[in-house]
Amino acid sequence: MERDLSALFDPRSVAVVGASDDPAKYGHAVASQALRADGRRPIHLVNRRGGTVLGRSAAPSLAAIGEPVELVVISVPGSGFEAAVEEALACGAKAIVGVTAGFAEAGPEGAARQRAVVARVRAAGAVLVGPNCLGIADNTTELYLASDRFAPGGVALLSQSGNLALELQLRGAPHGLGFSRFVSLGNQADVTLVDLVEDCARHEPTTAIAVYAEDFGDGRAFARAAAAAGKPVVLLTAGRGSASARSARSHTGALTTSADVVAAACRDAGVELVRTPREMTVALAALSSRPGPRTGGRRTAVFTDGGGHGAIAADVAEDAGLDVPEFAPATQDRLRTVLWAQSATGNPVDLAGMGEQEPLSYADTVGHLLAADEVDAVLMTGYFGGYAASEGGLGGGGQTGGSVLAEGETRAAEKIVTHLAGSPKPLVVQSMYPESPSCRVLAEAGIPVFAATEDAARALSAMTGRPAGSAPEPHEPHEQPGIPALPAAAPPLPDPGYHGVRTLLGAAGVPFPAAREVTDEAGVLAAAAEFEGPYVLKALHLLHKSDAGGVALRLADRGALLAAYRDMHARLGAGSYSVEAMADLSDGIELIVGVNHDPRFGPVAMVGLGGVLTETLRDVAFALAPVPARRAEELLRGLRTAALLDGVRGRPAVDVAAAAAVIERITTVAAAHPEIAELEVNPLLVRPDGALALDARAVLG
Amino acid sequence: MERDLSALFDPRSVAVVGASDDPAKYGHAVASQALRADGRRPIHLVNRRGGTVLGRSAAPSLAAIGEPVELVVISVPGSGFEAAVEEALACGAKAIVGVTAGFAEAGPEGAARQRAVVARVRAAGAVLVGPNCLGIADNTTELYLASDRFAPGGVALLSQSGNLALELQLRGAPHGLGFSRFVSLGNQADVTLVDLVEDCARHEPTTAIAVYAEDFGDGRAFARAAAAAGKPVVLLTAGRGSASARSARSHTGALTTSADVVAAACRDAGVELVRTPREMTVALAALSSRPGPRTGGRRTAVFTDGGGHGAIAADVAEDAGLDVPEFAPATQDRLRTVLWAQSATGNPVDLAGMGEQEPLSYADTVGHLLAADEVDAVLMTGYFGGYAASEGGLGGGGQTGGSVLAEGETRAAEKIVTHLAGSPKPLVVQSMYPESPSCRVLAEAGIPVFAATEDAARALSAMTGRPAGSAPEPHEPHEQPGIPALPAAAPPLPDPGYHGVRTLLGAAGVPFPAAREVTDEAGVLAAAAEFEGPYVLKALHLLHKSDAGGVALRLADRGALLAAYRDMHARLGAGSYSVEAMADLSDGIELIVGVNHDPRFGPVAMVGLGGVLTETLRDVAFALAPVPARRAEELLRGLRTAALLDGVRGRPAVDVAAAAAVIERITTVAAAHPEIAELEVNPLLVRPDGALALDARAVLG
Repeated sequence: MERDLSALFDPRSVAVVGASDDPAKYGHAVASQALRADGRRPIHLVNRRGGTVLGRSAAPSLAAIGEPVELVVISVPGSGFEAAVEEALACGAKAIVGVTAGFAEAGPEGAARQRAVVARVRAAGAVLVGPNCLGIADNTTELYLASDRFAPGGVALLSQSGNLALELQLRGAPHGLGFSRFVSLGNQADVTLVDLVEDCARHEPTTAIAVYAEDFGDGRAFARAAAAAGKPVVLLTAGRGSASARSARSHTGALTTSADVVAAACRDAGVELVRTPREMTVALAALSSRPGPRTGGRRTAVFTDGGGHGAIAADVAEDAGLDVPEFAPATQDRLRTVLWAQSATGNPVDLAGMGEQEPLSYADTVGHLLAADEVDAVLMTGYFGGYAASEGGLGGGGQTGGSVLAEGETRAAEKIVTHLAGSPKPLVVQSMYPESPSCRVLAEAGIPVFAATEDAARALSAMTGRPAGSAPEPHEPHEQPGIPALPAAAPPLPDPGYHGVRTLLGAAGVPFPAAREVTDEAGVLAAAAEFEGPYVLKALHLLHKSDAGGVALRLADRGALLAAYRDMHARLGAGSYSVEAMADLSDGIELIVGVNHDPRFGPVAMVGLGGVLTETLRDVAFALAPVPARRAEELLRGLRTAALLDGVRGRPAVDVAAAAAVIERITTVAAAHPEIAELEVNPLLVRPDGALALDARAVLG
Repeated sequence: MERDLSALFDPRSVAVVGASDDPAKYGHAVASQALRADGRRPIHLVNRRGGTVLGRSAAPSLAAIGEPVELVVISVPGSGFEAAVEEALACGAKAIVGVTAGFAEAGPEGAARQRAVVARVRAAGAVLVGPNCLGIADNTTELYLASDRFAPGGVALLSQSGNLALELQLRGAPHGLGFSRFVSLGNQADVTLVDLVEDCARHEPTTAIAVYAEDFGDGRAFARAAAAAGKPVVLLTAGRGSASARSARSHTGALTTSADVVAAACRDAGVELVRTPREMTVALAALSSRPGPRTGGRRTAVFTDGGGHGAIAADVAEDAGLDVPEFAPATQDRLRTVLWAQSATGNPVDLAGMGEQEPLSYADTVGHLLAADEVDAVLMTGYFGGYAASEGGLGGGGQTGGSVLAEGETRAAEKIVTHLAGSPKPLVVQSMYPESPSCRVLAEAGIPVFAATEDAARALSAMTGRPAGSAPEPHEPHEQPGIPALPAAAPPLPDPGYHGVRTLLGAAGVPFPAAREVTDEAGVLAAAAEFEGPYVLKALHLLHKSDAGGVALRLADRGALLAAYRDMHARLGAGSYSVEAMADLSDGIELIVGVNHDPRFGPVAMVGLGGVLTETLRDVAFALAPVPARRAEELLRGLRTAALLDGVRGRPAVDVAAAAAVIERITTVAAAHPEIAELEVNPLLVRPDGALALDARAVLG
């Protein structure tokens, strides 16, 4: 169901309604920009007073233009918007860009007006961007319908904030980043972020898609579109902290999705998630520089000429999720063949002054590092560029025979480019002189060069595919990311009570201990006769059974069971109880597995360490549901407390594969039951010989 | 014992031995720089070939100068260093700067040579910087004895890496940061980092001390000097990750101190710890900008004109350890009196377009925010500066009546400066146009202005005193930081065995359960008669008693105790055992308390969550020992699992004050016993009614 946006991005003709000579009016800015490509297609300016605008005759109305117009920008006061839309559709418009504000973001009345406008636009077979947007631009079709001017390039920028788009545009220039398209998302009343990601994925001149969004609309569809885009998607969003969530609610009427959910969706979709405009620029520079598959390998060689930079960069690389392993002796021996005796070869590699005397040693080192099996990526840091740097500045350059060294450095840069051309591995450079001629040689060959170590490490992290800020996972996924398909919806859960949930999950293959729901002493005794003790007794229909004293464990025999029943019933007077076979808890670990139906991203699974520390540690991981067993195992292995799974202090390892298989079943059931807002198995006991669900609950939406 | 370094920083005369016309020689660079202030004091160039160097006649030896020289820079080949030192001392030198390398950093032989040189220098009453250093500079005395030229200013830069110093110097300029002094630390054979910190603390023109160090020498003395400096000390160091620790070992022969210890010492000393040159520049810009006490308050008002920047900045501020609380209705009401109806006042504050129409609303907002009791600091972010920005760039500026707005913006900047002058609270600005005239008005008034949101947040974090990257602690220290004094050394521990350690700690007031050391069955029975069961039996002198089956708990009576003894003795055949009263573990939390004697920083305490999760979670906190009870409580309250202390899931809170008091006693004992390399109480049981040490061990150094 992808939408045809050709009338939006490459219209045969354009009209700007609300074009004005008053520089305080936005219609002035849009009209001025639009006229930059006057020759490409007819550009009509419309101002209800007629006369001249920007030196050309303005039509008093769209109808007065006297010919059909394919795209209409509407920048008029709020009360005139509907009439302008009607007029546009009457003139044959197939695309409308609504700058006018005062719709869904202003309250329920505005939302109703907005819905009515969308219905009219869709009925006419047209598309609408906005309302409450700042326009669009497409450098590949010379379409300039926003106040800002974007340098041409490969990035499609889809933004819900005009100022952030402006900052991204300003930041892109020093990195050689330009833009194929810009779309101000506005209220996404008709054309959504998802539509635009899909269209930009198809748009050949676009090499990367940059998104600033607070409201993802159909978040799952966004994740699916991003995963299928076939080009890098970088997402800047707010809402990690409580403060920004408050802000988002008060801005553009956005429904902010929880940060965990967004992060999980990005990870699953292979979207690079960033926190700031600066980080987005770094990620875009990295991902646009040398297109190709992200290798996934994290083993990074750090090298420098002068120890301080190497040590700092190694720390920062590890902070960014890269590994900086010590090299094997064979690799160090090979490096020694081109380096000085006093050079350090362990990783970080330190030329230890050799680069200053023989700049080509930089290139020789890059060559050997790229060739080493134990190296996935190379981070070069420090002074390189200094010899060839402009000699005008303070310090640096030329103090020790400048021009000869500068020449050698430039040759080294060229040789580095040659080495890299023959390798699939990424190289990123941090230089104190990023604008130096030698660094420009590198940059022009598509090697990202940064002034700041943290930027270089972040870029390399993006190029090797680890999600930003995430801890290294012992078992990294090696598959392409993907968004799990939702199973067909199952018939609604007939009984949302405890035994109803057990039945539902049990039918899907989730193992539970034997249990029987009872309502009186006779039932208790009948249950005791059905299976052997020790027993567990639970009072049902209490929110926190355990805290309320509604769970009795380790009841050795029917006598103890009956006594516990009488006590509990006297205290709680619950309507029904569950008598269960007590599981063997020895050598077991308690997990928690839950699935929440997020209004934007659909079913989202959470797995984590259960028990008393669950809330305190918040050692949990998220993924879009359903979660295949293999991915479930990755989530478990990525927990901070994952070492517990393999046994600590002499305890045996538990059956993680069994737990993962159960997680697949639980999350699949949840995904097939959209009526269940929350489905939780807690604890899921994992023992060395299997996994067993000890309790479960469902909350209907 | 502070050292007089006046001959180093303000000598009456200088000689450069090894001065050269060969630009490949370092003596060329030093001599060239030295001559920049030829008129200030006599500068003698010495080259063994005599002749002319840099156009002036060079002496063939120091003696040939024919007059005393107070400071001598020695940049000669390694074999000639000792002779040059002798000659310098003979000429009356009181300070020597040793550029020559090949000493301690090159191996044991070089270390021996270095020791001999230091002995000679000290015997002569002189001081030595280096060897293996890149020189020194003092802009306040026009002393230029390093290859790089440092712009003048208030920062004293003490660096163990020449290239990092160069990067810091390049990065400082855009922030208006200049340097009072530069010292290349080299091998710190005589003059150490500590000496230099102390001297720079006394040096009035120095307003902040910036350190890059891998080798801290006497780390505790460094921490003490920094804490007493009375001016900001910012430390850049490496060694957080395994890779950089390897690098540091192979560089400058540095003994890298573990990252936890360094971080703890910095926290205790009030040193701002940074990870990169960029972060150091940001911290220096923040701490130099508006001298004054760090308030310690973290409640930050974020405000912008255009929601995206506010939401992003709020997230980033929280990441940097600041709080961005929602404002109380009264504060919001006061903001409403100066803002539009559609402006957001909750925090982030969003002018929502008002700033574009009425730039003075920026200043009004700053005024109200600074006046609000619930605001400790203000972070302004986004477009401010855009109206007054140069109109030459892409986008921005002037699109809506530029010059009027630009004028208003500059007036707003001036008014912001006035507001701030009357307030002790910090304001930091992130602007897309940091070089704009209005932002320059702010910067010139000492308000830090940054282009990147993360820099602005980091700066504000430095100005409010929370250690970089640390999580907010519920109970922040409000005292000045300080380095605890070491207690007088106690007589060495007579018996380092388990009962010897118990006796030592017990005498200091650390409570233990009743216990008796036994070696046979008769002893077991005698112990059982001394106190009541249930009992614990421990086999002594095993490293991991518990893992080896050398601990039996919950032995109900003497029969069970005896049986356990027989079983354990048959299995382990230990020489002695401990019979103990079993503590009541119910409602208790197990902590671990340890003190390690760090070779550089002395006794360092570690407190954390004990039990099976200790190694897995690594939920531990460090501080220099001894740790006062009040600080111990802060450390406990700062643990990730601190919520356990207050009781979760209906459990009662434990007696944190009792635990803290015991931690003070344990760490004081450890600090008085330098012969104990490691002292550990594990577990320290904390119950609602007190704390009890259940096991302890000491490792002698």
